[in-house]
Amino acid sequence: MQKEHFLDRFHRNERLIGLSDGVFSIVLTLLVLELRIPQFPHHPTATELWQALERIGPKIISFLLSFLFIASLWFTHNQLFKLFDKVDNAMLWYNNFLLLVICFIPFPTALIGEYPDNPVGIALFGSIWVMVPLLIYLIGSRAYHKNYLHHTVDRNRYRFLRNLTLIYAPLSAIPIAFAWTIPKLAFAIYILMMIGGIVAGFFVKVVED
Amino acid sequence: MQKEHFLDRFHRNERLIGLSDGVFSIVLTLLVLELRIPQFPHHPTATELWQALERIGPKIISFLLSFLFIASLWFTHNQLFKLFDKVDNAMLWYNNFLLLVICFIPFPTALIGEYPDNPVGIALFGSIWVMVPLLIYLIGSRAYHKNYLHHTVDRNRYRFLRNLTLIYAPLSAIPIAFAWTIPKLAFAIYILMMIGGIVAGFFVKVVED
Amino acid sequence: MQKEHFLDRFHRNERLIGLSDGVFSIVLTLLVLELRIPQFPHHPTATELWQALERIGPKIISFLLSFLFIASLWFTHNQLFKLFDKVDNAMLWYNNFLLLVICFIPFPTALIGEYPDNPVGIALFGSIWVMVPLLIYLIGSRAYHKNYLHHTVDRNRYRFLRNLTLIYAPLSAIPIAFAWTIPKLAFAIYILMMIGGIVAGFFVKVVED
Amino acid sequence: MQKEHFLDRFHRNERLIGLSDGVFSIVLTLLVLELRIPQFPHHPTATELWQALERIGPKIISFLLSFLFIASLWFTHNQLFKLFDKVDNAMLWYNNFLLLVICFIPFPTALIGEYPDNPVGIALFGSIWVMVPLLIYLIGSRAYHKNYLHHTVDRNRYRFLRNLTLIYAPLSAIPIAFAWTIPKLAFAIYILMMIGGIVAGFFVKVVED
Repeated sequence: MQKEHFLDRFHRNERLIGLSDGVFSIVLTLLVLELRIPQFPHHPTATELWQALERIGPKIISFLLSFLFIASLWFTHNQLFKLFDKVDNAMLWYNNFLLLVICFIPFPTALIGEYPDNPVGIALFGSIWVMVPLLIYLIGSRAYHKNYLHHTVDRNRYRFLRNLTLIYAPLSAIPIAFAWTIPKLAFAIYILMMIGGIVAGFFVKVVED
Repeated sequence: MQKEHFLDRFHRNERLIGLSDGVFSIVLTLLVLELRIPQFPHHPTATELWQALERIGPKIISFLLSFLFIASLWFTHNQLFKLFDKVDNAMLWYNNFLLLVICFIPFPTALIGEYPDNPVGIALFGSIWVMVPLLIYLIGSRAYHKNYLHHTVDRNRYRFLRNLTLIYAPLSAIPIAFAWTIPKLAFAIYILMMIGGIVAGFFVKVVED
Repeated sequence: MQKEHFLDRFHRNERLIGLSDGVFSIVLTLLVLELRIPQFPHHPTATELWQALERIGPKIISFLLSFLFIASLWFTHNQLFKLFDKVDNAMLWYNNFLLLVICFIPFPTALIGEYPDNPVGIALFGSIWVMVPLLIYLIGSRAYHKNYLHHTVDRNRYRFLRNLTLIYAPLSAIPIAFAWTIPKLAFAIYILMMIGGIVAGFFVKVVED
Repeated sequence: MQKEHFLDRFHRNERLIGLSDGVFSIVLTLLVLELRIPQFPHHPTATELWQALERIGPKIISFLLSFLFIASLWFTHNQLFKLFDKVDNAMLWYNNFLLLVICFIPFPTALIGEYPDNPVGIALFGSIWVMVPLLIYLIGSRAYHKNYLHHTVDRNRYRFLRNLTLIYAPLSAIPIAFAWTIPKLAFAIYILMMIGGIVAGFFVKVVED
């Protein structure tokens, strides 16, 4: 193998992708384990079973939301790392911390599913919304300054999006303050932010076809 | 790296495959966790242990069926995505929703294993049979209209199979109606549909060798 | 992309590898979940905690054995599939059934860990030892007859090993008969077979460097 | 496919990477499952829920430490295997044993989380710190003597690092002796060793860009 070919493989680091996709797929799949089948002392009728499922409704909603949230993080992660020719040690560790935050998501999710009106779960969930854009900013910024971007990437748009990520982090902290007085509003804002993020993802384009 | 080579890698999106195979393999493996070892107050004799295993027979059958169902979904997913030169944002999100449905499969599976005669589990299982072909239709249709198919794909056969998928979705809804009166028949139909699907998969061919 | 290049990618089917490695790594990792931390009504002394760990000794041994067994299956799977230029639909399904058997391994493992002297667990474990070589034979045989082997593979040695696999299956069934009378002997034979298999794996060579 | 190209693929063994990354990502993700949501007989106030979370503080710290430890092992594994042109059967098995040790990490982690002052958990944790560098030494040494290193690797630096690993193993055993008298000190030393290892990883360089 030629030295250049070797260095290309050496630097691109497909294992960062392998580890990250592994963590994403496991977290996505583990979320459903929170949904426990209702237990009955006798054989339940269809109506009884249906009502029991309705009672775990908040858990099903929190499962759906967390799934969408993690799926949209994967989408962003995917779009970002595709732009890099090289990944260095610092970026590997920023990514490890990002995976740490992602692995933690099922915990506040389960808290919100169990105690939907309690601000603690929503505040923990919100703090994830602060840390994720900060870590993405660190990764994106490092790649920019170290010149690891592929040459077809539009640097102006890339810089604009990177700065947007930086603004996003403190804004995400605001609903944590709300959480203690109007938890439902804080939660609703996070849901809107997520849907907005997914929709915006369709229009983001930093590489010309 | 050349621009064309980069765009080829950029568009093919092997991470969609990585994430999907991760989810498929975890869901397949988690199914066996539903099989709990029988507990005894004393050291059981071979006969006692064997009888205890017979009693969890319905769970073992529901484990086998779900494994085959998810394995056949993986097979279809595999055959489909091999045909695409490119995957776009819309297809990524259709696929995320497909993975959401697949992650949900262990829940109705566990319901059917616990309450085999109750229509609720079978109805939930059936609704998965409706959503899966719809999402596969959306993915396949998008690739067709956006011209992402590899040039060796036979477009007539592809279109024929895509339309078949669309017919399949409402047909899969019919046994849900049965489920409330004759649950065993509804379940049997889904099993026959699955076996039919696996057998049919051997004859489907949209690329000439 | 050229047609030949496309067909090469189309046929080699890296997703079979992706799905299989996913299943192998999850089954390997889930085995440790059977090891539960001992619980105490008070803060235990070092001696108490150590004795409690000694009491779960059989579980630790069954964890180690299952890990080695599955790791050696992965090793064989790896050695085998490296030889193929192409994988077809039948082989995909034989492999799916192989994965089904592998996913099932934690169940008899847990049975043996809980009831080490009970023949039922050992008989179930033994039946896995019969099914695995049969499925490997089917995969290897299909590749041979359909001419999917890479041209550097030594066909005589390949055929010899394939036939060995076929003999291995009925031989693996013999200790199941023992299991009902001398369970410890049956289990010891499986352990010896596994160690023998790992050692033999070092000398198997069907491709010249 | 040409014979040389085939052998290159045959020897590099991307499946070792696939299996290892699978195991790493699952172990990282499973760690969070140890964090159970606090249960209350009534709807807790924010203060009550917060205090309940504070009580599981040691578990959260042991979660963070294990995550960092396993992430830094992945980092080392990644840096090491990138240097090899070829991986042989012996290295596959050394790696399998390394994965066995990694899969075992959640067990002493849970022990330390549950009984932070008990030396048994810390001694088990410490024995992992002895086995990991030994296995890494075996892998690195085999690659060196069999000449599997890529030609751009600086052999002097590689040899120096390999010998460092060998010194590291017995040094890691020293805190195990401490553990029985001053468990907190032994644990603190392992944490310092981990942080030192992560920092050192940034300066290790065996390939010139």
